[in-house]
Amino acid sequence: MAIFSIHRIHDTFLFRYSLNGYPYMAHHGDWFGGKAVGMAVLNIGSLTANVYVTHLHAEYCRDKDSYLPHRVVQAWELQQFIRHTSAGADMVILGGDLNMHPQDLGNRLLRSYTGLQDAYLETAKFDGCEDGMTLIADNPFINKKELCPFEKGIRIDYILFKGSTKTDIYCDYMSTTKGSVPNHPFPYSDHEALTAGLRLETHTRTETRSDRQPKIKDSAAGKLAALVDIVTEARTEVKVGLHCAERMRYTATRTGVMGLALLVLELAIAAGPEQPFPRTSFYLLAALCFAILLTTFLLYIFYTMELKALQGAEDQMRLAVGSLQEKLRGFPLAQPHNARGGPQRVMSPVHWPRRNKRGAHCGQSGLCERSL
Amino acid sequence: MAIFSIHRIHDTFLFRYSLNGYPYMAHHGDWFGGKAVGMAVLNIGSLTANVYVTHLHAEYCRDKDSYLPHRVVQAWELQQFIRHTSAGADMVILGGDLNMHPQDLGNRLLRSYTGLQDAYLETAKFDGCEDGMTLIADNPFINKKELCPFEKGIRIDYILFKGSTKTDIYCDYMSTTKGSVPNHPFPYSDHEALTAGLRLETHTRTETRSDRQPKIKDSAAGKLAALVDIVTEARTEVKVGLHCAERMRYTATRTGVMGLALLVLELAIAAGPEQPFPRTSFYLLAALCFAILLTTFLLYIFYTMELKALQGAEDQMRLAVGSLQEKLRGFPLAQPHNARGGPQRVMSPVHWPRRNKRGAHCGQSGLCERSL
Repeated sequence: MAIFSIHRIHDTFLFRYSLNGYPYMAHHGDWFGGKAVGMAVLNIGSLTANVYVTHLHAEYCRDKDSYLPHRVVQAWELQQFIRHTSAGADMVILGGDLNMHPQDLGNRLLRSYTGLQDAYLETAKFDGCEDGMTLIADNPFINKKELCPFEKGIRIDYILFKGSTKTDIYCDYMSTTKGSVPNHPFPYSDHEALTAGLRLETHTRTETRSDRQPKIKDSAAGKLAALVDIVTEARTEVKVGLHCAERMRYTATRTGVMGLALLVLELAIAAGPEQPFPRTSFYLLAALCFAILLTTFLLYIFYTMELKALQGAEDQMRLAVGSLQEKLRGFPLAQPHNARGGPQRVMSPVHWPRRNKRGAHCGQSGLCERSL
Repeated sequence: MAIFSIHRIHDTFLFRYSLNGYPYMAHHGDWFGGKAVGMAVLNIGSLTANVYVTHLHAEYCRDKDSYLPHRVVQAWELQQFIRHTSAGADMVILGGDLNMHPQDLGNRLLRSYTGLQDAYLETAKFDGCEDGMTLIADNPFINKKELCPFEKGIRIDYILFKGSTKTDIYCDYMSTTKGSVPNHPFPYSDHEALTAGLRLETHTRTETRSDRQPKIKDSAAGKLAALVDIVTEARTEVKVGLHCAERMRYTATRTGVMGLALLVLELAIAAGPEQPFPRTSFYLLAALCFAILLTTFLLYIFYTMELKALQGAEDQMRLAVGSLQEKLRGFPLAQPHNARGGPQRVMSPVHWPRRNKRGAHCGQSGLCERSL
């Protein structure tokens, strides 16, 4: 990951994702890559721009994506990082290989929570691959089978942006490279590169017209309800990951115990008066037992770390859902717009599902069917 | 680490430090503890409070503190995390076991960069151990030898705070526990607990009196210059860490190569027509070689990760020093205050040391001798 800038970089910060695949999946290499999100703070005139760059865990098999919980936690941490570090920024730009299709859970989570807009969807002009695809079938560096069932290619690299109360930001044009380097038979990389031209407009926001308020509130409530849905979906995915990690840790523990039992048994037999083993087999078996014990010990530690990270993310999501639901309760019920000026029916707390302190599931359906 | 609050926690975020000791130092246990800084966002009335909690790597030997570079990088990441996530906060509170004395490098780095104030130094009333000590010699859970040469104890736990342009924050009282639990022969923990009463005052800052401006600028320039000094000191410490990590990785590589050479030699001899080894020794030696190869491979990966994290922090510090120096150039020279109203001599860029693009060392002495 790199950020090059003609504006001076004043400050930087790097956040390493807590989860990023498995070290023993060495042929996938993601764990060794050490995925993170980097931030650079630029001053453009009197404005502050926070520019982020990231790369999330790859998807190797869409049907049976064992890395999905990790990627969802990465998307969760990415949105947290951007939200919490961009409060003082006048504009936010994120570029990166998100390894997620436009409507994938992590992508929806990121965009809904941060309010970032997709440059491809917002651009006035576009010049590039069909449907903005960045991983295309024609690329000689990729395995076409991995694209299946998307024969032509997929869009997994993004430029996202948002302004602030001081700044509006528009995408005037966007382009992607289209395969080979001019006059060469090969492309620059396995992905197509993205370029976006963004235009800034500063303003003083004085347009809080009171007649627009109810509509704004309705739409905000709708967005909040949708966000509750998305976070709940992410929570479910993380729970699946938790279940898998628990099972893996259990398997590692059981294998370790079996290795230990084998070692004890061997030593007990060897301590007896008769030696039924040839010495070679004895040493080989002992070495095998030690290897099993060491490997399962390392795996146990790794899975414990994975479990703690997943559990932490799940806890944070539970708390976030609770907080979002409380915010939602503060909004008036969606109502016909001709009721303007009349007394507003404020949702009474008793209408809302109770006992949602621990689980968002119970609250979710009730909330979202009403508000959307 | 835990945050308990009577105000609802609306949002959370956790940052794991990139460096935290070594897994093979299992008797110290810090690596297994997984140190981090946690943040909780509370709404207190109409105000937003960011509350942070952290625990840095312990210091086991002050004279020969091999963990110092790790702790300095943790302090660096802590200040980055607080600065970048607190832009929207009306008040910031940090509590934690920093494992640093009040004037230690990491502590100065944290307080200078964030502007956080030490509750012990700011409190109107104090009731507790002498000098605010939190790790006292009387505690039965600690090893008194580790305190040496501070026989009575040390102050390594802190409550730090700061307000904002909207809020002033004052510490009305502070206390520590003083050894044993009332009516019991043992204390609550190996550290004394801290309590602080903080008072908030909100205001609209309209007091930008123009006659105070020059003095404020001088003091800000002095603080900036001091900060440049501190970051440079931290950079030096990180460089020492880099040197150590490089040496360790080199040792691991060399040992691994020797293990491989031994294995190849053994196999070459075994492939010959005569068998000089008893079979048992052959297998034992081969097992030893494999153990060496595996261990050095794991160590190589670990030290590479350590190197990358240290190098990353060093790069960030270099960039920060450059940015701080540029800011400093924008300030007028310190001048006699009776020159008020006269034309201000603005520091010309040619007065400043050049060629400091990569090194802060050359810039530092020039800057700080002038401004302090």
